Amino acid sequence: MAKAVSGNRNIKLTIAYDGTAYHGFQRQSNAITVQQILEDKLARIFQSPITVNGSARTDTGVHAYGQVVNFLTAGTIPAERIAVASRGLLPRDIVILAAEDVELDFHARISATGKLYVYRIHRSALADPFLRNYAWHITSPLDVAAMQEAAQVIIGTHDFSAFRGANITQVVSPVRTIFKAEMSQDRDRLEFRVWGNGFLYHMVRNLVGTLVDIGRGRRSSSDMGILLAGKDRSKAGMTAPAQGLYLQEVFYNSTHPGMC
Amino acid sequence: MAKAVSGNRNIKLTIAYDGTAYHGFQRQSNAITVQQILEDKLARIFQSPITVNGSARTDTGVHAYGQVVNFLTAGTIPAERIAVASRGLLPRDIVILAAEDVELDFHARISATGKLYVYRIHRSALADPFLRNYAWHITSPLDVAAMQEAAQVIIGTHDFSAFRGANITQVVSPVRTIFKAEMSQDRDRLEFRVWGNGFLYHMVRNLVGTLVDIGRGRRSSSDMGILLAGKDRSKAGMTAPAQGLYLQEVFYNSTHPGMC
Repeated sequence: MAKAVSGNRNIKLTIAYDGTAYHGFQRQSNAITVQQILEDKLARIFQSPITVNGSARTDTGVHAYGQVVNFLTAGTIPAERIAVASRGLLPRDIVILAAEDVELDFHARISATGKLYVYRIHRSALADPFLRNYAWHITSPLDVAAMQEAAQVIIGTHDFSAFRGANITQVVSPVRTIFKAEMSQDRDRLEFRVWGNGFLYHMVRNLVGTLVDIGRGRRSSSDMGILLAGKDRSKAGMTAPAQGLYLQEVFYNSTHPGMC
Repeated sequence: MAKAVSGNRNIKLTIAYDGTAYHGFQRQSNAITVQQILEDKLARIFQSPITVNGSARTDTGVHAYGQVVNFLTAGTIPAERIAVASRGLLPRDIVILAAEDVELDFHARISATGKLYVYRIHRSALADPFLRNYAWHITSPLDVAAMQEAAQVIIGTHDFSAFRGANITQVVSPVRTIFKAEMSQDRDRLEFRVWGNGFLYHMVRNLVGTLVDIGRGRRSSSDMGILLAGKDRSKAGMTAPAQGLYLQEVFYNSTHPGMC
């Protein structure tokens, strides 16, 4: 249930969190989520109930370096004091990176013009205990050039039904615009970075699952275009594991990195 | 209580672990430790009780990339199959990286000729939720050149009583030889690497606490030699937090990196 909230201020927060311990971002009635923890602690700081709008839901185990939320309040604490005030209250896996007063019509989700997601893959014969919650561990060889080639196919405006999560609760258009997509490798760490105006449920993880199929040689890089055109979720690859995904940045400008 | 164990094989394992969830390496009667988990799972693989010798105790929250253990067994599983067999048994925060048959007189601790410890510091005004268990977060400015200069003073053979943990249960010589010590920085990550023939209880963390005092300007780099010569623990700096410390590598050669 949404609480009735009002206020003469609209505050935008940028937050980072390790999603390992949470059932995703969005408040749920029967599980601990980032939103719930954040709202509870903000309510203590502002001495009144707070309801935040998140820029995106993130699933269980998904991380954020730059999640953005906003909330209305009548509280008077200066924006620059919010991060400091939150330090002793928030658990150490959730950090407020920035806080600022914004126009009353700013909405973290609706005002967003784009997002950058990062997906991390750890390529190694041996598991790394320090990456178990922070990357997808893949032991098989990967043809990174083929993956990079296939990733370029998704750039532009497409119907992404083939990469849409099966668990759809809202009827929304499956059309999204991808501004830029790239695979980069640093020793045993492979990173997929994708900038878009929006993403469907599970879309990044489904794209990564298919790109890994291509990297493993189970599909060719030309399959990406065929899958996109076919709009059939059952034809595309598996959903990559949650722990490799990071909501890296949310954009509110008319132009942003990767935008054409 | 040490169990009676025997066998015609002596097996050396190299293991990595995230120490966050454990009360250190060494088996304790009333807390979960890495040794206990490891011995329990090895006993299942070898179908008989196993007691391992660790190269070093690591404290609660301290990590390892290259802890070495050995154990005697009459079991017949080939060494190259141990890591694979352990994967489904060990929790994901403990990983066997390598296993090999060694001479019967090899002992992980007694045979060691040197160790490399790494201590990680995260220098940033803002905390990073992903590093909360993996580095010491320091917000104040640090004079890294002064820290590097002071670190050179500990190289050589010295009485390290000034940096010895107060919680001493064994009467051992406080004399140790440091082969090499260096501070290195990569953006906001500062790393202290120290190679020595052995380390006293809390010695690396006490050295780091003092080096950070020097970096903060609370002490001068010339204080390091004075502290060493004074042999008085109460004069040196605080014990740096456990979560920044990693047992990186254990050496069994007559020469190894950093050895003069």
